Amino acid sequence: MSLDFGPAVALSCRECGARYPLGPNFACQECFGPLEAAYDFGEVTRAEIESGPANIWRYRSLLPVPVDVASKPNMNPGWTKLVKAGNLGRALGIKSLYVKDDSGNPTHSFKDRVVAMAVEAARNFGFHTLSCSSTGNLAGAVTAAAARAGLDACVFIPANLEKAKIAMARVFGGRLIGIDGTYDEVNRFCSELIGDPMGDKWGFVNVNLRPYYAEGSKTLAYEIAEQLGWRLPEQIIIPIASGSQLTKIDKGFKELVKLGLVEDTPYKIFGAQAAGCSPVSTAYKAGHDVVQPVKPDTIAKSLAIGNPADGPYVLDIARRTGGGVEDVTDAEIVAAMKLLASTEGIFAETAGGVTVGVLKKLTESGVLDPEAETVVLNTGDGLKTLDVLSGEAVEPTAVIKPSLDAFRATV
Amino acid sequence: MSLDFGPAVALSCRECGARYPLGPNFACQECFGPLEAAYDFGEVTRAEIESGPANIWRYRSLLPVPVDVASKPNMNPGWTKLVKAGNLGRALGIKSLYVKDDSGNPTHSFKDRVVAMAVEAARNFGFHTLSCSSTGNLAGAVTAAAARAGLDACVFIPANLEKAKIAMARVFGGRLIGIDGTYDEVNRFCSELIGDPMGDKWGFVNVNLRPYYAEGSKTLAYEIAEQLGWRLPEQIIIPIASGSQLTKIDKGFKELVKLGLVEDTPYKIFGAQAAGCSPVSTAYKAGHDVVQPVKPDTIAKSLAIGNPADGPYVLDIARRTGGGVEDVTDAEIVAAMKLLASTEGIFAETAGGVTVGVLKKLTESGVLDPEAETVVLNTGDGLKTLDVLSGEAVEPTAVIKPSLDAFRATV
Repeated sequence: MSLDFGPAVALSCRECGARYPLGPNFACQECFGPLEAAYDFGEVTRAEIESGPANIWRYRSLLPVPVDVASKPNMNPGWTKLVKAGNLGRALGIKSLYVKDDSGNPTHSFKDRVVAMAVEAARNFGFHTLSCSSTGNLAGAVTAAAARAGLDACVFIPANLEKAKIAMARVFGGRLIGIDGTYDEVNRFCSELIGDPMGDKWGFVNVNLRPYYAEGSKTLAYEIAEQLGWRLPEQIIIPIASGSQLTKIDKGFKELVKLGLVEDTPYKIFGAQAAGCSPVSTAYKAGHDVVQPVKPDTIAKSLAIGNPADGPYVLDIARRTGGGVEDVTDAEIVAAMKLLASTEGIFAETAGGVTVGVLKKLTESGVLDPEAETVVLNTGDGLKTLDVLSGEAVEPTAVIKPSLDAFRATV
Repeated sequence: MSLDFGPAVALSCRECGARYPLGPNFACQECFGPLEAAYDFGEVTRAEIESGPANIWRYRSLLPVPVDVASKPNMNPGWTKLVKAGNLGRALGIKSLYVKDDSGNPTHSFKDRVVAMAVEAARNFGFHTLSCSSTGNLAGAVTAAAARAGLDACVFIPANLEKAKIAMARVFGGRLIGIDGTYDEVNRFCSELIGDPMGDKWGFVNVNLRPYYAEGSKTLAYEIAEQLGWRLPEQIIIPIASGSQLTKIDKGFKELVKLGLVEDTPYKIFGAQAAGCSPVSTAYKAGHDVVQPVKPDTIAKSLAIGNPADGPYVLDIARRTGGGVEDVTDAEIVAAMKLLASTEGIFAETAGGVTVGVLKKLTESGVLDPEAETVVLNTGDGLKTLDVLSGEAVEPTAVIKPSLDAFRATV
């Protein structure tokens, strides 16, 4: 089997640094630490990137994908809008605020970015089935990408997910298995399945393909920097589920500096969690290095990972960059969703309510510098979490007969 | 008041050709025909367009907007994906097929394009409130754009719309008035309101701002041509609601030819309706020039306009280009939504089921040439019309305990 992962040349252990050949492996044989893609970057220029397509493949020289990746059938996610959020900034007293709005991706969440990497890895390894454990968004991203790429799909979700996320995972075909349990139980089940003959030739995007998959989140860092005019933001607020997205955005920023694509300016990374699933925030506030697992209970189901794999790395990054980790209640999440919608016309899912809620909380408490250029991530779409907007929020202001008198009576 | 509509210099009557100064007017004083924007285009080059932003403002030299439009707060819609639909093409026996997927717009329908024009017109005329009659998608596009632009919003919908569309129109703030009646009754109500003091300084995007608003649909033609490598498709399937989108895409293609931006190659335009609201298709098949209004009864609510204003123009264009008009049943619409999703990973709303359903029907009946390069439009998002996917389509394949034995039992 001849592999082509472009500039990625090996897997390396994030704990002990041991290196392995590229393969469908995810844990270090020495220390059981997580593996990640290691690169041998050639020269990469702004001009080369700028002449690329309006999707993540403009950064193919920085990703574990072959050089001709853009010519294969895939979802071509990314290059989502970095919205100058003047109204929200004024409402919160922040001078220069941007929303990176990843609801513009093909299945309306940032997961399309990571799944696109996993599809290339599955092709490289000759896998016929794409699979995952998912809190919802990922299931839809995997089944859609599999349909486009001509792969089979079999995905696993907690059975109690939002109806819209279930529908979106099912409509693209493939098998959608509801598991009677939490996301963490779904995840453990998938780990067992990988070792079983039933799971042979299966690419579990967030398990055995994770070292490739996770790299997709770096594209958020690349895009933000390029869209700001090739510079790093001073402050960025990122949601925490497994914590992988946050660690990869940090990795992406560092790569851009190392390659000379942006100036080496300081940035602070802030992690955002829901109070009902805040193991990293709790550890951060207590000054711990270890994250104690919790049982999630929050409306922010896409962030409801009680045992976040990258938790310790998130703590490191928040402390190293001078950022932090904060959490907000379900009520604050809904209020923040409405605030973002009514100021900027962006309908975020609950995860976006978490980041905007944390943005508000940290601004009010003086932790965030209102004079510093700030980016807040929205990673998903409000249409998938409609259930949290109850009552009057989803009803007409008034229902009337079609007459001017009837309308006058409502004014 | 100093107006700046860029290259647009007048309004002209589509029936008698009478010209009027630019203003918030929509009907000819001579013959009551509809007014549309008339231009004095300067030289426009491919290079100038290609160096523009990845949204509709790359075509600002062809639209009724000021040259600095991209610097104002607005939704920046457009530059959505033209997906090479190899799987769907193989399934239907079409050699070269593309899906223009407008679900990638900010509020996930093509309406963001037209509303963006209306916002500039409202700013020009000093209007403080943005309004519309809507079958759902437009209401969300208007309230979102008003939020971003800092305008008030008051929008009118039939009270029986899909829950997701109501929620999306409400979450952005402003007033959302449900009217106890059909879309055509909502529309008539808005026409009355314009003449009333209550509607003073209101921009009804699809009534008194319609000559500007409707021009936004031209950007679909521009994008398709540019994304094909600066050429016209040979066949295109477009949904019909009012018919305005179809007539403006034809106008856009003709402008590109006239400006020398593409070669003058023949193209056939096909209109697509739901059988439960098919006044244009009925007239086309009967060989009539006049469209007889109907009372809509279809799941394709975004196309449920029983008295389509541009119906006669659609008939002209279908006949002139050698295209046609066809309709499909609600069952065919749902089947086509599933076909598109499972082959291309695109989750369309019912309107996309209508166009793909018509694509299938016309291919099977031999009306479409399977050897000709074909583009089919998806103008909206499946998450907004979830209700039509009933039963097993929105449920997991199976719900199991988290054990390998339980999974084995499902295989």
